[in-house]
Amino acid sequence: MATNSSVIGLDFGTDSVRAVVVRVADGEELAQAVASYPRWAEQKYCDPARQMYRHHPADYIESMAEAVRLALQGRAELAASVVGIGVDTTGSTPVAVAADGAPLALRREFADDPDAMFILWKDHTAVAEAEAINALCRSGRFPDYTKYVGGIYSSEWFWAKILHVARTNPRVFQAAANWMELADWVPALLTGVDDASRVVRSRCAAGHKAIWHPSFGGLPSREWLVALDPVLGNLPTPLFHDTQPSDHAAGRLTPEWAARFGVPAGIPVTVGAFDCHMGAVGAGIEPYTLVRVMGTSTCDVLVAPPEEVGETLVRGICGQVPDSVVPGFIGFEAGQSSFGDVFAWFERLLRWGRGDAVKPGALLPKLEEEARKLPPGGYGEVALDWLNGRRTPDADQTLRSVIAGLHLGSSAASVYRALVEATAFGSRAIAERFVGEGIAVNRVLAIGGIARKSPFVMQTCADVMNREIGVVASDQCCARGAAIFAATVAGAYADTGEAMRAMMSPVERTFTPDPEAVQAYEALYRRYGRLGAFAQEWARGQ
Amino acid sequence: MATNSSVIGLDFGTDSVRAVVVRVADGEELAQAVASYPRWAEQKYCDPARQMYRHHPADYIESMAEAVRLALQGRAELAASVVGIGVDTTGSTPVAVAADGAPLALRREFADDPDAMFILWKDHTAVAEAEAINALCRSGRFPDYTKYVGGIYSSEWFWAKILHVARTNPRVFQAAANWMELADWVPALLTGVDDASRVVRSRCAAGHKAIWHPSFGGLPSREWLVALDPVLGNLPTPLFHDTQPSDHAAGRLTPEWAARFGVPAGIPVTVGAFDCHMGAVGAGIEPYTLVRVMGTSTCDVLVAPPEEVGETLVRGICGQVPDSVVPGFIGFEAGQSSFGDVFAWFERLLRWGRGDAVKPGALLPKLEEEARKLPPGGYGEVALDWLNGRRTPDADQTLRSVIAGLHLGSSAASVYRALVEATAFGSRAIAERFVGEGIAVNRVLAIGGIARKSPFVMQTCADVMNREIGVVASDQCCARGAAIFAATVAGAYADTGEAMRAMMSPVERTFTPDPEAVQAYEALYRRYGRLGAFAQEWARGQ
Repeated sequence: MATNSSVIGLDFGTDSVRAVVVRVADGEELAQAVASYPRWAEQKYCDPARQMYRHHPADYIESMAEAVRLALQGRAELAASVVGIGVDTTGSTPVAVAADGAPLALRREFADDPDAMFILWKDHTAVAEAEAINALCRSGRFPDYTKYVGGIYSSEWFWAKILHVARTNPRVFQAAANWMELADWVPALLTGVDDASRVVRSRCAAGHKAIWHPSFGGLPSREWLVALDPVLGNLPTPLFHDTQPSDHAAGRLTPEWAARFGVPAGIPVTVGAFDCHMGAVGAGIEPYTLVRVMGTSTCDVLVAPPEEVGETLVRGICGQVPDSVVPGFIGFEAGQSSFGDVFAWFERLLRWGRGDAVKPGALLPKLEEEARKLPPGGYGEVALDWLNGRRTPDADQTLRSVIAGLHLGSSAASVYRALVEATAFGSRAIAERFVGEGIAVNRVLAIGGIARKSPFVMQTCADVMNREIGVVASDQCCARGAAIFAATVAGAYADTGEAMRAMMSPVERTFTPDPEAVQAYEALYRRYGRLGAFAQEWARGQ
Repeated sequence: MATNSSVIGLDFGTDSVRAVVVRVADGEELAQAVASYPRWAEQKYCDPARQMYRHHPADYIESMAEAVRLALQGRAELAASVVGIGVDTTGSTPVAVAADGAPLALRREFADDPDAMFILWKDHTAVAEAEAINALCRSGRFPDYTKYVGGIYSSEWFWAKILHVARTNPRVFQAAANWMELADWVPALLTGVDDASRVVRSRCAAGHKAIWHPSFGGLPSREWLVALDPVLGNLPTPLFHDTQPSDHAAGRLTPEWAARFGVPAGIPVTVGAFDCHMGAVGAGIEPYTLVRVMGTSTCDVLVAPPEEVGETLVRGICGQVPDSVVPGFIGFEAGQSSFGDVFAWFERLLRWGRGDAVKPGALLPKLEEEARKLPPGGYGEVALDWLNGRRTPDADQTLRSVIAGLHLGSSAASVYRALVEATAFGSRAIAERFVGEGIAVNRVLAIGGIARKSPFVMQTCADVMNREIGVVASDQCCARGAAIFAATVAGAYADTGEAMRAMMSPVERTFTPDPEAVQAYEALYRRYGRLGAFAQEWARGQ
């Protein structure tokens, strides 16, 4: 392979897709561009009151073409050097597809039906369906299919969303020949797979969200689906047999897409995976390192050797799947349903009535500056980070946040500080769950917008968790992880580990716990636990 | 008495003093003016973080002179017609005084010592001392001196504040020849009493805040004080023997103050009383009418004939004292530690970082307009009104507010609505306590800033309490009540009742419960109770 070879990482986020061109030899980011989803930007096909969030497939198609075009614009030599493409996406973001694998919304008759579009990870329309799945899993009538997903199936996931559409939109459900994750569909599209049954499925998506596991022989049985709801008997079962990690190619780039991108045709495209998983690879994840992707929510990823994990199951996380992050390891996933969203919520409250002159986020720097000056615990306020329910530990989307200890002396800064501390307490709860269940956490790395932009939040996390936290230099770790897999499937390295060590982004800053703050947070963390126990009773109406 | 005789009501509030000139014949308000306390306006001698709030005596002296001067400016005939002055004040607002009755802060050596100033009603520095008093009262070693103050002594009251200064500032404590309430001191100042032992003490202040009661033979014994803390053995005991209701004159206006005010010298000045008590008189209180003075906090006043009250004790209110509101009746006092302050607090949060262009209160109309459009319960948020602790039922200044049910969809308007509902729930708890203890509440009247300015808050109170609420027309009911007493001591009427019926302010608007809202609030009120139970555990660190 030429020394100047490059790969493209395509990172499909909530608001936009990012294309990053990375040098294979050393991981240098040579070019990048972002393209927003135009229909999403207008909030089409969404209903925040119902927490319904959908992406039209055309948004992905148009934006992906635009992002790559912009990244390579006027750089013919760079474009010619591309030897592979890696893909990461949000998830669980499933879609109903026709027999040719195309999302139903791409057909005229379903073009405006939100249920024929991608059901975004943060869509919470399927709460009742998740409860039905959990009830069935606890009934003892079938194997406990939640065994490898922390013991609780979430409304954010694949089967809950399919069941919701099955129950509420028979027209779409009956027209669907199959269902895919966004991480399955993008590589299939780029490689010209025109038969839904031949699409290579992402191990990561299937294992963490669709209850696929080798010990189950794949997906849950047809009997289980019918017991869940007879309407699911209309699904082709199983939807798929096999899955692959991202060190496998999904296929080769079609001439059409090669022309659209301006890169060589026939280069390999990786099997897709979730953004946070590839982000962990971009950050150079090692066994027992918790890599936290910290944005509006967090996704916390850890890997461990299967021989050391053995039969250990971690309750209340989002799953543990062989080969799901780095091939050869068990990949664990956890996370907080809202993190940056917590700060954004409070800032939105404060922006009330200020008009368009004050842009979202504009108040945060001043707020941080004032909050930083306060002692741990502010003026006595304690909050929960569950403004969007709780993802882990122990998923429960019915939970709400509570702020206690409010008094006339409570200020915008002290309440903000309580919210920052709440997100840090939620972070600690995740790390403690891993450790308590027998999976060590030896190191914490952070990537994502919050990690690099808010030293105050990161220092608070370090103090509350009583752990050093390394912040990774690259803003584009997810895309870089996709690029690392692309370099692997292109044959530039022997395996993912070798590619990772060559191309990963280094740590640029380390936050070290302050002993005094650590001490103060011990008591406050117990208060957080007490407040959380109350919020659980409150959600149950008690 | 001349038919055009007038009286002046002086109303000492938290931020300013108001002088209202009232026609004796019919209660017509002929003139009025307000003067702010200049040092207080700069928040001198305050520390909100510790909930320390002090008034310098010079603020009262300068502002009182200014307010009367402004009210009578250019109206010599009106000034000459003044036949008496009535005084109402905040309370419990005690101060350490020298042997001549002057507050210590008026001496050079104590001019900047907050402990030598008036300790404002809402100052909460004496929480530990109130606990000590309650513990002693429950020890069985002495008569239960909390018997007539609802069973709980508050940190907002006389003895707790004295004990706090005794323990923390020996210099001030040892220099104090005696202690007075603001309601004692202003009449003493105006009538030239220069001996602390000869100051006529307010029945209202002494009975509701200083544990004075005829059945105790006056104040608690010296033995009790020493048992509370030996340091109190240094107090002259008793601080005073007798007390008088406000239909008695404290004395006659000195020539010096007559000149400063521009009114005739030698006119009678009433014994002082608390603002809310006089407000109830200004509103024409009748037996079993709950008159609510609704401002930053509320003070809820009710009177009943002693022969009907008999031995009935109402637990958890601020006291029941013979002659304390209207001579001849038992006066009951209850209230919420924060009411308008709750809304002001949230608005202050929202004003954060907006600069001086947005004045306090400027955001409230828009906030009300949006909150009014939401259904009862907003978007699921429930709050407590205890941002300044809880005055009644069951005083506990260690309590804090809690807001539950918060989520990413919670808005400034929905949180504001939850806070308004919280204040209404607190109002309902007070009315229910009276009724539950055997004292009927046949009617509710409201006076004060909130009552006339916020129809949304008043309608919410009517819906939550499921009672009609009449709002009294005058903005100046407290000063008017003081004027009614002034007319009585001037001899214009046979007694307070006769003066009240001639000079009281009528009801201008009645809020009627909406049956649908009443229904919705039943369940929410139970949730409020549940949240309150949690907040009590939280305050105890459980």
